Amino acid sequence: MAAAFSLHPRLAADTAHVTRLALCHVLLMNDARVPWLLLVPERPALQELHGLPAPERALLMEEITVASQVLERLYRPDKLNVGALGNLVPQLHVHVIGRYRSDAAWPGPIWGSGPAIPYEPDALAAEVERLRTAFAEE
Amino acid sequence: MAAAFSLHPRLAADTAHVTRLALCHVLLMNDARVPWLLLVPERPALQELHGLPAPERALLMEEITVASQVLERLYRPDKLNVGALGNLVPQLHVHVIGRYRSDAAWPGPIWGSGPAIPYEPDALAAEVERLRTAFAEE
Repeated sequence: MAAAFSLHPRLAADTAHVTRLALCHVLLMNDARVPWLLLVPERPALQELHGLPAPERALLMEEITVASQVLERLYRPDKLNVGALGNLVPQLHVHVIGRYRSDAAWPGPIWGSGPAIPYEPDALAAEVERLRTAFAEE
Repeated sequence: MAAAFSLHPRLAADTAHVTRLALCHVLLMNDARVPWLLLVPERPALQELHGLPAPERALLMEEITVASQVLERLYRPDKLNVGALGNLVPQLHVHVIGRYRSDAAWPGPIWGSGPAIPYEPDALAAEVERLRTAFAEE
């Protein structure tokens, strides 16, 4: 499921590739606890949001919006969490995560909160397919 | 130090007002562990980034960039963390935080990681003044 672009091995190991938008690759975190997308601009040397040129920053914000709308439509989360941290992985990536008052980490951040629970392989493939269809409809 | 706009009491209690940009108020979190800004668009009813109209989303991204540059210039952090969570406070706000490999929460997120360490009152006022000058120079 690894994407055919320059992706940090840690991101590749933890995700499945969903689709490509104008700026970013969209990845699904292999963690069934919550619906969790990563947006990764194809700029492997960049670590900080503000390292993107201004037009790409604006495009990134629009792709965050699209990802947020897809998550809301498919998963009806109580809240979205959006973040660019990168303390562990030196490649710019933005998390867009659906959160629930009932999830294990609520109301704390999901980052660093307990181990991921991987999807069953069939379930992962099915989620990727649902997401791919939803992004194509946006 | 509370800002003269509609600010959730929890945000008001935890911050000092730095300045007003085109879209957002800039607040300094009263937590001396790390340099920690909040950007709060004057849209008190909004909770999600993608609830902003597109031009304001683009403006928000530019104000995140300015805040990031100010933090880098004044505090030389090892990494910036940018996030919109809002699990606890139902008013849209974006965190822009300078992180250090030596800080208490590294490499985890600072949100939910231990109690804040308030500045001494004089130190808080001095930081606000430094920040205000730096934003005016951007």
